[in-house]
Amino acid sequence: SYDAAGHRGECGGVVFPQGQDDLRIIVQAASKRGIKLFVRGAGTGFSGGSVPLDGGLVISTEQMDRVLNLDTVSEEVEVESGIVNRNLQDYLEPLGLFYPPDPASFKFSTIGGNIAENAGGPRAYKYGVTRRYVRSITWVTASGDVLTTPMERLSSLLVGSEGTLGVIYSARLSVVPLPETYRTSFMAVAGDEKALADAASIISTGLCPSVLEYIDSKTMRCVSEYHKINGLDEGSSYLFIEIDGVEKEVEAQYRLLEDVCRRRGVSLRTARNEVEREILWEIRRSISPSLARRGVTKVNEDVSLPLGHLEEAVSFIHDLAGELSLDCYIFGHCGDGNLHVNIMTDRRKKEEMQRVEIFVESLFERVVELGGTLSGEHGIGITKSKYLGLVFSAAELDLQRRLKGAMDGAGLMNPGKYFTM
Amino acid sequence: SYDAAGHRGECGGVVFPQGQDDLRIIVQAASKRGIKLFVRGAGTGFSGGSVPLDGGLVISTEQMDRVLNLDTVSEEVEVESGIVNRNLQDYLEPLGLFYPPDPASFKFSTIGGNIAENAGGPRAYKYGVTRRYVRSITWVTASGDVLTTPMERLSSLLVGSEGTLGVIYSARLSVVPLPETYRTSFMAVAGDEKALADAASIISTGLCPSVLEYIDSKTMRCVSEYHKINGLDEGSSYLFIEIDGVEKEVEAQYRLLEDVCRRRGVSLRTARNEVEREILWEIRRSISPSLARRGVTKVNEDVSLPLGHLEEAVSFIHDLAGELSLDCYIFGHCGDGNLHVNIMTDRRKKEEMQRVEIFVESLFERVVELGGTLSGEHGIGITKSKYLGLVFSAAELDLQRRLKGAMDGAGLMNPGKYFTM
Repeated sequence: SYDAAGHRGECGGVVFPQGQDDLRIIVQAASKRGIKLFVRGAGTGFSGGSVPLDGGLVISTEQMDRVLNLDTVSEEVEVESGIVNRNLQDYLEPLGLFYPPDPASFKFSTIGGNIAENAGGPRAYKYGVTRRYVRSITWVTASGDVLTTPMERLSSLLVGSEGTLGVIYSARLSVVPLPETYRTSFMAVAGDEKALADAASIISTGLCPSVLEYIDSKTMRCVSEYHKINGLDEGSSYLFIEIDGVEKEVEAQYRLLEDVCRRRGVSLRTARNEVEREILWEIRRSISPSLARRGVTKVNEDVSLPLGHLEEAVSFIHDLAGELSLDCYIFGHCGDGNLHVNIMTDRRKKEEMQRVEIFVESLFERVVELGGTLSGEHGIGITKSKYLGLVFSAAELDLQRRLKGAMDGAGLMNPGKYFTM
Repeated sequence: SYDAAGHRGECGGVVFPQGQDDLRIIVQAASKRGIKLFVRGAGTGFSGGSVPLDGGLVISTEQMDRVLNLDTVSEEVEVESGIVNRNLQDYLEPLGLFYPPDPASFKFSTIGGNIAENAGGPRAYKYGVTRRYVRSITWVTASGDVLTTPMERLSSLLVGSEGTLGVIYSARLSVVPLPETYRTSFMAVAGDEKALADAASIISTGLCPSVLEYIDSKTMRCVSEYHKINGLDEGSSYLFIEIDGVEKEVEAQYRLLEDVCRRRGVSLRTARNEVEREILWEIRRSISPSLARRGVTKVNEDVSLPLGHLEEAVSFIHDLAGELSLDCYIFGHCGDGNLHVNIMTDRRKKEEMQRVEIFVESLFERVVELGGTLSGEHGIGITKSKYLGLVFSAAELDLQRRLKGAMDGAGLMNPGKYFTM
């Protein structure tokens, strides 16, 4: 009944299909009786996409978690939608392969949910988001037909559709060889905006790290308290950088990084072994849980901006949060322009929540002015659907609704979310 | 009225819009009057996609060929749909950038046509096809609305839609930094199937060339006669390989390639400078024109197969062509499983054309049995629409037609092609 951001709803029942036939029979029965369907992976979403409304039926995919097929020549794997991202990685690793999309929730979130939200993650900067890795999807349409769409064109329509067009049963995914080696570093930078200028300067040298993450100073302070880490520079914001590839290439890229850091007067702290690398990753991945301790309610926005406007956006956000006296934390995948903007608040405080609403609206308006979008990877769900008018014209919204109508005329697939009927 | 494979049709008129307003006015006027629209880039297609039928109106994009915007920080360029691929490359090169999709027709074909067909090309093996590089599309819907779809989800629906869903005005494209260096080689292999086994063995070593092309022995003989090249081993089939990247990485990869060749007893001939590299590329790119001299009619099929089945497919195709006494040439992008199968014939010879039809049908059936698809990059157009039933179930065809109905209810966009109404 809930998701990771605390959105809540109530359902009339939950079913746990164990395979394609179960799934087809469930959808056919629901279609015949006009029962609303809400598909749920692990419920790790932040925008209410998996939360049931109006007492419909929840389809949990958790018992459809098998690897169906592996083709090492074509480098692809076919999995059921309920498999947890991390379990897929564990399956692939001994084969010398990995599946690049790595949302922060990867230890819990399912591939089906990752596909429905077009999940990214830190590695998306080099490797791209989920869409790039989906070769075909086997899914159940709103009327209960089972389709396998081998063409990228139609599969792509389902990727990021947030459960509104059909139920994903399985997917054939591209996987790639594990890199030979990694070099993982933290850069401490004085100044939240300067860190983003440093990131831009890293990119402009032609350096292509697999990961380029931004953590502002307030967020970093919060993480270091949570982890009781010594040696982190408390007033600084941080860039988290990983380079991967074959040894020689990684070495050459790392020297380029050292040059940039010297030129810009920034210190570089690099993991000397796999244990230290794991610690750095743990710091990155524990941002969300450590923030969660700061407030009862986390308003978690996820915007995407052209790289050239990141500095300006962060400066605007800090000013805006200051004016509205809100407790704001910014971090994100700055390599691909995706910022996570978090306000720690308490939804029981009415007046503060009104200020939060003003904040979110002003944030979205500014992001759109700067050529950005409202969702990098968390989806539209319930929380952002009222802002769709900011990014889409009436004709665009109309087209989205006509496509939805063509695929789910009765409006039974995840109603009340995204483009509501 | 024609395309590169000689398909012909007749139109009621041709318009040459010079920008977005012209395009919108044309589509609105046609929509109001029920006039069928056929969009044409450079007419370099092989499946009849750009050929007008039933006297409709042809929209030539050739006068919409400007670069609209360049953002070097985000590494993207916005262009009108009529710009020729090569002209875009010429614009990008001094900036140290390039646009990876490189269909063999790139000197003539337009970006709009490349998007409509989801064009690939030799470099697709490392860099991927057109779909990966389209960030957003500005297009005119069948009812004359101008939309800019910033979400990959909807843009992706237009990529590969062969002009059946709307008219593309412009696109924002990702571009990437030019590689520091290249190493370009030819491998002569005795045996058309062995060459594919060698290619598989190259891939399995972890080598990732940017280009990995296959040219069967008959095709190579034809090219070498056309070019009067000495020193090519006439009885051999060839692999054409290019490695790109930073110097050290290219060097390391090339040594891996030498090892594979030694182990498999294959000679490697490598360009020693840019002039020699250009000659090797010219050989690859002149396959189509040199074949054109062998017959009046070129039946040009373009199938995609899982890598593990390429050898089997080529052996099947050679046997089938032998049985039917047809003149058959195979080449293609074996790195990503895309084979071009050409029959040189004469459409005036009725009995031979019947054998060609049997050949094509048997080829498609076998390809589908082996898990492949009917079109790697040439599209469905007129020529393949009758075979759609081989790859799509009735429910899938129905879904495609419902989506088409939602976007072009009157059926005015490129009717008679692909999924006809």
